[in-house]
Amino acid sequence: MRSVTRDTITQAFLDYCGPETDPRLKSVLESLVRHLHAFAVENNLTHAEWRKGLELLTKAGDITDSERNEFVLFSDVLGLSSLVDMINSPDEGTPSSVLGPFHMLGAPDLAVGGDMKGDNVGDTVIVTGTVCEPDGKPIAGAEIEIWQTADNGLYSNQDPDQSEYNLRGHMVVGEDGRYLFTTVRPSPYAVPDDGPVGELLHATGRDPWRPSHLHFIITAPGFRSLVTEVFPSDDPYLDVDAVFGVREKLIMIYEKQSAGDAIPDGLAAADALTDPYYKVDFDFVLVREA
Amino acid sequence: MRSVTRDTITQAFLDYCGPETDPRLKSVLESLVRHLHAFAVENNLTHAEWRKGLELLTKAGDITDSERNEFVLFSDVLGLSSLVDMINSPDEGTPSSVLGPFHMLGAPDLAVGGDMKGDNVGDTVIVTGTVCEPDGKPIAGAEIEIWQTADNGLYSNQDPDQSEYNLRGHMVVGEDGRYLFTTVRPSPYAVPDDGPVGELLHATGRDPWRPSHLHFIITAPGFRSLVTEVFPSDDPYLDVDAVFGVREKLIMIYEKQSAGDAIPDGLAAADALTDPYYKVDFDFVLVREA
Repeated sequence: MRSVTRDTITQAFLDYCGPETDPRLKSVLESLVRHLHAFAVENNLTHAEWRKGLELLTKAGDITDSERNEFVLFSDVLGLSSLVDMINSPDEGTPSSVLGPFHMLGAPDLAVGGDMKGDNVGDTVIVTGTVCEPDGKPIAGAEIEIWQTADNGLYSNQDPDQSEYNLRGHMVVGEDGRYLFTTVRPSPYAVPDDGPVGELLHATGRDPWRPSHLHFIITAPGFRSLVTEVFPSDDPYLDVDAVFGVREKLIMIYEKQSAGDAIPDGLAAADALTDPYYKVDFDFVLVREA
Repeated sequence: MRSVTRDTITQAFLDYCGPETDPRLKSVLESLVRHLHAFAVENNLTHAEWRKGLELLTKAGDITDSERNEFVLFSDVLGLSSLVDMINSPDEGTPSSVLGPFHMLGAPDLAVGGDMKGDNVGDTVIVTGTVCEPDGKPIAGAEIEIWQTADNGLYSNQDPDQSEYNLRGHMVVGEDGRYLFTTVRPSPYAVPDDGPVGELLHATGRDPWRPSHLHFIITAPGFRSLVTEVFPSDDPYLDVDAVFGVREKLIMIYEKQSAGDAIPDGLAAADALTDPYYKVDFDFVLVREA
């Protein structure tokens, strides 16, 4: 187009896309550019503001490395990551929630009933439930990956004082779909706020904190994989999660237990339980692949 | 918010912004997040597509350094840079156009009538016109910065074979507002397409080329500064400018001249003109500051 104007530039962009462009790519780009242009026009965006945006992206690039991706963090604190999770989460199953940057492949096997707490400091939690279909039918052989923070709010791959796979496990459930393990109560933690994402959080008076949670990935042949996290109902940060990961259905109740209470069958660490300890019961509902 | 959903996450983001948030920042962020979320929902964005977008941003960070900013280039090829120019360009004046990444401070002085071509290879062009107000009144003492590519399509700061300030000049016009200089005809060039921007251009069958142009920054006390570029009417890339910089009013006609034609008064290089040479006449209209 020889002469673009405010009114023709969006169409000019679309006209530039050649006939060989993948239809899905073209449609996503069309939507992206319409929104981007509308954003600039609606706000009468100044050059200084445009430069500020580019400066934040450039700083995000500078701080990003193999251990930390500031673009993912921007997506998280703007609610985009959670929205993509919700868009792709089937209504009938357990809601998905953010994967986060701390997942590691290769977690050690943990038998049903096994102990993941080891010598970690903090309150003990018994976590149990069933992996099942929406009608409650157990999914035999489902695999569960679990990872979480230690009492200091750090994951093992953030903390040189933890062993490589501390508080990470991989469990295969039996015919009854039941999972069960002991662990330490996870701790809340703040997302990194020393980069451009922090600049945004500070400028808007936002909290960098996330409520404590246990991460889970549940897979089973023939079912849609579930990436999620579950939160204790008494966490002080439930209402201000910096990355918008909390869903009503992902809140679980930590029931305070004492020595007199029934201990689930098959718990390896049963004899080591000391007051107080907690028990949470949470079922994961998987949906069959289309 | 304890439990965000697809329908509440945008409001949750807005509610997170504290009362101390600068009102303009809050309003721009509100618009940004509304568009970002609507974009994801409209397209039912998949996790794979979300990851692809983050991967492109991460790659842009990797390739960005002090000499090259891939985020600016993304803004350019998506039409955002040009749109911001147009939003901030007063209708009564000469349209602005992209500054680009090749401007350098400290260009050498060039007298009115001076020669910028020196020993550069290529056709000679006489460039002249007036810096004036919308009613045609000359703006005495206006300052003009000029920069352009050499015949090989490279700017001096891209090309170790050119002297530092080759084809760059700084001119102050007299009482009549008239500017005049000789230079070499600029050449088209391709924006860098070996990074993620190139990936986008290739996937959409787009040309990385920009039509040839002369860059200008015009300043005068009491007037809004003008950053612009002017294009020859016969350039083969006028209709496909990769960065959407072409405006109807920024196209100038290169008039082919021959020895018999009148040469403007005061042209330092008048005796060195050889056939063919070109003449372009282009007035810059500045608007008073509000």
